[in-house]
Amino acid sequence: MLLALLMVAAPVPSDVAQRLVGGALTEGVAYARLEELTDTIGPRLSGSAGAEAAVRWALQKLRDDKLAARLEPVKVPHWVRGAESGEILASPRAVGHPLALTALGNSVGGDAIAEVVEAHSLAEAAALGESARGKIVFFNHQMRVPEEYGRFVEMRSHGPSAAARAGAVAVLVRSLATASFRSPHTGMTGYDADAPKIPAAAISTEDAELLHRLLQRGPVRVRLSLGCRMLPDTDSANVVGDVRGREKPEEIVLLGAHLYSWDLADGANDDGAGVVMVMEAGRLLAALPQHPRRTVRVVLFMNEENGLAGGKGYAAAHQQELGRHVAALEADGGAGRPLSVRVHAGEGGAEMLAPWLSPLATLGVGLGTGDAGGADVSPLDPASVPTVSVHADPARYFDIHHSAADTLDKIDPENLARNAAAIAVVAYGLAEMPAPLPRPAPKPSRDKPEGPKPAAR
Amino acid sequence: MLLALLMVAAPVPSDVAQRLVGGALTEGVAYARLEELTDTIGPRLSGSAGAEAAVRWALQKLRDDKLAARLEPVKVPHWVRGAESGEILASPRAVGHPLALTALGNSVGGDAIAEVVEAHSLAEAAALGESARGKIVFFNHQMRVPEEYGRFVEMRSHGPSAAARAGAVAVLVRSLATASFRSPHTGMTGYDADAPKIPAAAISTEDAELLHRLLQRGPVRVRLSLGCRMLPDTDSANVVGDVRGREKPEEIVLLGAHLYSWDLADGANDDGAGVVMVMEAGRLLAALPQHPRRTVRVVLFMNEENGLAGGKGYAAAHQQELGRHVAALEADGGAGRPLSVRVHAGEGGAEMLAPWLSPLATLGVGLGTGDAGGADVSPLDPASVPTVSVHADPARYFDIHHSAADTLDKIDPENLARNAAAIAVVAYGLAEMPAPLPRPAPKPSRDKPEGPKPAAR
Repeated sequence: MLLALLMVAAPVPSDVAQRLVGGALTEGVAYARLEELTDTIGPRLSGSAGAEAAVRWALQKLRDDKLAARLEPVKVPHWVRGAESGEILASPRAVGHPLALTALGNSVGGDAIAEVVEAHSLAEAAALGESARGKIVFFNHQMRVPEEYGRFVEMRSHGPSAAARAGAVAVLVRSLATASFRSPHTGMTGYDADAPKIPAAAISTEDAELLHRLLQRGPVRVRLSLGCRMLPDTDSANVVGDVRGREKPEEIVLLGAHLYSWDLADGANDDGAGVVMVMEAGRLLAALPQHPRRTVRVVLFMNEENGLAGGKGYAAAHQQELGRHVAALEADGGAGRPLSVRVHAGEGGAEMLAPWLSPLATLGVGLGTGDAGGADVSPLDPASVPTVSVHADPARYFDIHHSAADTLDKIDPENLARNAAAIAVVAYGLAEMPAPLPRPAPKPSRDKPEGPKPAAR
Repeated sequence: MLLALLMVAAPVPSDVAQRLVGGALTEGVAYARLEELTDTIGPRLSGSAGAEAAVRWALQKLRDDKLAARLEPVKVPHWVRGAESGEILASPRAVGHPLALTALGNSVGGDAIAEVVEAHSLAEAAALGESARGKIVFFNHQMRVPEEYGRFVEMRSHGPSAAARAGAVAVLVRSLATASFRSPHTGMTGYDADAPKIPAAAISTEDAELLHRLLQRGPVRVRLSLGCRMLPDTDSANVVGDVRGREKPEEIVLLGAHLYSWDLADGANDDGAGVVMVMEAGRLLAALPQHPRRTVRVVLFMNEENGLAGGKGYAAAHQQELGRHVAALEADGGAGRPLSVRVHAGEGGAEMLAPWLSPLATLGVGLGTGDAGGADVSPLDPASVPTVSVHADPARYFDIHHSAADTLDKIDPENLARNAAAIAVVAYGLAEMPAPLPRPAPKPSRDKPEGPKPAAR
């Protein structure tokens, strides 16, 4: 009796549920597009030929899907990796040891040969004082699970300046990784205005363990050479496509992901998966016999990873209509199995959305708790835009995150489709519910290199 | 009652069991030595400075342990890796794609730019005929579990000659790996006398998947450059140490492992683990108040991986006493949890050994079935030497096998100690039992690049 009542009360019409969930789970469009994006374009670092090819590709796909699509120009940083190498010099080993390393994004290039000194936090690096002068500071940590990313990422994002202030000549950071086969993980770093810019690279967790052990035996010298450099900012674009609302087209539900990827691999997980998920949600919604009440806007951001230019650019360009952004969802947590829907809104918002999630019950996805934000949509926070996320299982996310192993084979087609279905259903609910979600209290803008990643939510 | 009877009947004195198992599990010597070997010496490719440092190190350790130790000279191949790179050229991708590759051991160096043609076996490569002329043959497969290594390894060991006979200019082989983060796995290849020698490299499984998918889209061209080369054979040595038998010193129980490693990493798993296990068994046996009846001989072979010079050299040098080798055990299956003891002997041999294994019952190690051999001891087969092995769980063995990820952090200290304990107990039984194991029917000598690895047993 209760069940019957609930089923009658479910607000999503059954043909809509069938088209959204059934379409995502049977047609294979999201996975086919991810394969096309990663195989025929590849890495999409901002400023690169791959990024620009991806912009053109995405615009065409949104148009194929009957979204009202356009490019919105943004200036992006143009950092390029060069030849890079490093080694532990022979003593205390019988022979030298090549370090599996990769420059951090935005690092300056340069060469160094110096003794290594180990630190485990920014505070420890600052406390090194004179003992760091002329040295290479090695930031080590014990990240074991995804939830620890947020705790240790400061060493990658702010370590170079902390070390430089203590007189260091270069920085090595243990990769923020939950598994490794000698695979270094890059990621954004930044330089404070008051500190010299010194070269900074990530090393594999195995090399970090070795360095740590060798330092117990005595002094260790390392040679480091990074050929990376920053070029002038370049023109790029966010790719934006609207499924125009049938009643309130001026009210916007934003579905975002970042088209940009790191350069070491094809970015299948970060964030090709998110890109094709939100594209798929847009495609399925646009193909409904009637559009939802509000506009659903797919935004493929350029340059999340090394500057957030896309997210900031979007917020600036749309400043006047942020008050009519009724919700924003960012898909940037990988393609693990979707576990829950998280809501950051005003009082009672989550409960308002809950009944709209009933088409996801059989997939095991219901309302959950935790951070619902994302880096690209964080510039919307000062305008009190509610954020909603589909939380995917993060267990394996940091195994490959920002590394050369972020490739298509790591993506499970069924979980990718489940995520697309969940995003489509969430977007439908947000765009169709009679009144929009209550808005949360405003949060301050987040203006730092990179906050905790979604998987740490 | 039955239990009491069994305990009384167990032939290993309780103080011996305590010293062997308790010593291995509490003193941490094997792990400490593995750390010393991998951290202070590192890779040990035959002919390298690391290999020679390891020979000196091992000789000293065996002497420290009171074994009668010596070097037995062998000539070994001296192959060196050089700079190596490769890429999928831009079309059908928007941008080129760097291949994660590494030369196969013994490969000739060379450069190639050519279209790729895919094959899945030696037979398929031979059948390519004219379509392979001037091309790069890409050997692909679907290895999923350790047991499949033996089925696919022919493509690595004999693929280059099969492809060269069809007119190919180079070979790429999908890594024989059960997991990958873009990590190529090297391994020995060989050239037949009747075929041109062409460069051959392993590519990561991810790159193999990509190449396979791109080939569905159209022709794919690859650039390959390998700087490896073969130098003249060089002088090296097997390291041999005896725990002299108290009654029948001329009868020998051989415990072998290979000191050599591949050059991409420190060889912690292959075969540093085996080296310290058999050293530890020797140490514990030498420290018993009285030595076992027969001699236990620890043999650390040089050059298993790219030529088996150590194993062949030992068999040739000891030809006259092979009839008095009562058993040979090779530890070359990694340091997974020991699961069973395998015996290849004449009729009734396994049953003879069984009661001597009672000290291992609580560790879950009893008599099992399956291949008990090993590459280094295979030259003893024509002399009908019984082989015995401690079979370790191979589940993760091929994740890191022959790759840059074969590092100390992959070794579980407790499982390493369990294996050492098991080998010590097995060796004690073989050396103490009243009559030696019955000898098996002779097997033909195995004279090919490399047979199935122990984990495929």
